[in-house]
Amino acid sequence: MQVVDVDLGDRSYPIYIGSGLLDQASLLRQHVPGKRALVVTNETVAPLYLERCVQALRQDGTLDVETVVLPDGEQYKSLEVVNKVWDKALESRLDRQTTFVALGGGVIGDMTGFAAACYQRGVHFIQVPTTVMATVDSSVGGKTGVNHPLGKNMIGAFYQPRCVLIDTDTLQTLPDRELASGMSEIVKYGLIRDAPLFEWLEQNADALMNRDAEALTYAIQRSCINKAEVVAADEREGGLRATLNLGHTFGHAIETCQGYGNWLHGEAVAAGMVMAADMSYRLGWIEKDVLDRTVSLLQRFKLPVTAPKGMTAEQFRSIMAVDKKVEQGKLRLILMKGKLGECVITGDFDSACFEATLKAFCH
Amino acid sequence: MQVVDVDLGDRSYPIYIGSGLLDQASLLRQHVPGKRALVVTNETVAPLYLERCVQALRQDGTLDVETVVLPDGEQYKSLEVVNKVWDKALESRLDRQTTFVALGGGVIGDMTGFAAACYQRGVHFIQVPTTVMATVDSSVGGKTGVNHPLGKNMIGAFYQPRCVLIDTDTLQTLPDRELASGMSEIVKYGLIRDAPLFEWLEQNADALMNRDAEALTYAIQRSCINKAEVVAADEREGGLRATLNLGHTFGHAIETCQGYGNWLHGEAVAAGMVMAADMSYRLGWIEKDVLDRTVSLLQRFKLPVTAPKGMTAEQFRSIMAVDKKVEQGKLRLILMKGKLGECVITGDFDSACFEATLKAFCH
Repeated sequence: MQVVDVDLGDRSYPIYIGSGLLDQASLLRQHVPGKRALVVTNETVAPLYLERCVQALRQDGTLDVETVVLPDGEQYKSLEVVNKVWDKALESRLDRQTTFVALGGGVIGDMTGFAAACYQRGVHFIQVPTTVMATVDSSVGGKTGVNHPLGKNMIGAFYQPRCVLIDTDTLQTLPDRELASGMSEIVKYGLIRDAPLFEWLEQNADALMNRDAEALTYAIQRSCINKAEVVAADEREGGLRATLNLGHTFGHAIETCQGYGNWLHGEAVAAGMVMAADMSYRLGWIEKDVLDRTVSLLQRFKLPVTAPKGMTAEQFRSIMAVDKKVEQGKLRLILMKGKLGECVITGDFDSACFEATLKAFCH
Repeated sequence: MQVVDVDLGDRSYPIYIGSGLLDQASLLRQHVPGKRALVVTNETVAPLYLERCVQALRQDGTLDVETVVLPDGEQYKSLEVVNKVWDKALESRLDRQTTFVALGGGVIGDMTGFAAACYQRGVHFIQVPTTVMATVDSSVGGKTGVNHPLGKNMIGAFYQPRCVLIDTDTLQTLPDRELASGMSEIVKYGLIRDAPLFEWLEQNADALMNRDAEALTYAIQRSCINKAEVVAADEREGGLRATLNLGHTFGHAIETCQGYGNWLHGEAVAAGMVMAADMSYRLGWIEKDVLDRTVSLLQRFKLPVTAPKGMTAEQFRSIMAVDKKVEQGKLRLILMKGKLGECVITGDFDSACFEATLKAFCH
């Protein structure tokens, strides 16, 4: 078992990564301070892992465990669905000492975290991510929330879990597309701050796609360390943390335009990272080689490297104008600049290059 | 103008109290850091003060001000209505640097604060309370949120404003029942920690009911100081802060049972405080004189001192069982103990006295 410590003062917490961790009951149990827990999961994950998770929590016989099963998919990441968690909690008369446990992917983690942040103004929260995306992205950083018809992740809170438990065995049941989607975020850590990880990925892409346990553990651990370092330095996204959004501003536009759930998050981010890399190259900020290696690595994970067919430059412009990184009306982007592994967040770029990228990727 | 400083480290903020403050444009404006603001108010307050508030914000010509007018009443303190604020914010493309301004009573303050806490995971927030209740209760402490059909204030967040501006002139238009409702919370500060304030209220009840500006300013300032001291010592309600809920556990049961909005909050709290005092007396924790003075002072403000007709002991028991102060299944209450102005929070009481109080107040 590997442990990554996320250092946030009195809100610090450990991430446990390893095979078979869901069967080590005491690992989870020690982070549940009250006498009641609510496990939140979805229809896909429930038949696979809900029973094991509940058993782990109940093993010492002192914990009363409730469960709620939500529909599966980004299109259900809404206020309406999160309200079902609150309904269940109130019907079960769960008090302020209750622990909410998120069992599932990023959508379940984000919604359960938000539900925990707002239930009685805040109850304990634990994450048991079961997708690569959730292990390397949603499980570190405390961003929780839901989508709004007018924008992704627009309603939410910063809220930290008491621990994150990653049982790598749960990744064996993940659909191929979901696996690849998670790889997109791992590539991102390479691009924004960890060139050795990027190079390791170039050498180990096949092992990862074949779900080699050791390779998965290493990639997840390294990603969590990267994200934990960034978040510890800048918990509330003053500046540095925003670099974690490489490819996400373009990507969110794709997700919003396509309707949530048609493109997976990591797929949209992959195309978005290629657009950011393309724009960085047009600005003269990176070598052609860096752009090419980015495209090539993402393709090895079978991730999209172009915008969706039929999406227009105007759609990108319009949706990106309401991005959370917009400040005083000015769009800011995370762009690559310098050597592989170096990036900047800036609103100070030649907008002709932005337009040229939109033109190159749109039909 | 009086200023009360709420001391919460880097989330400290000032409360300005005085006559005509809404016309001092720079007072509000200095606390709005971005270029955009959203004023949230209701149908009752809008025709009275919205224009003045917007003018104050716009006076120097640098701020873009949007407004949203919600229906008026506790029954609209819901997730559905708070979503209208987010709709408006997203339709107006308000960014993360925006300031939400709550103009109205406690319901508007609580909902706007919650809307600000969750919009893009947190934007700036200012309160301009226009009821006595909001000035002495909701404007200090950072509790924000909405009701759920199964419980009052069950969904929410702790979120601090950047400033609170109390223009006492706005209290002149307040209906008599609303005025009295606010007095209930002022009496509470006397009962839980400030016997001199209680005695001052006994001497000045008529002046307050006649809306004497000087008396109102003093009572509000003293209440804000009391609440600010408690909140500074215990921001997240570990223990001391819970004493602010004297009468509220019984009172919430009354509100829940009657349907939100039929009894005003302060009316329910008044009856609840009498029930808490009655129980404290039965426990032998206070003298009969303290109970009698409590009833008598509340009656001078024309506040109810009995439970609603027809409400049963079982209804109290059942609703109080889901109170936020319940820990590990055990009901905890704020009760008076000792001299006037002294209280405790405890789950350690003879339940026969609890039952006797329910029996005495229920039909």
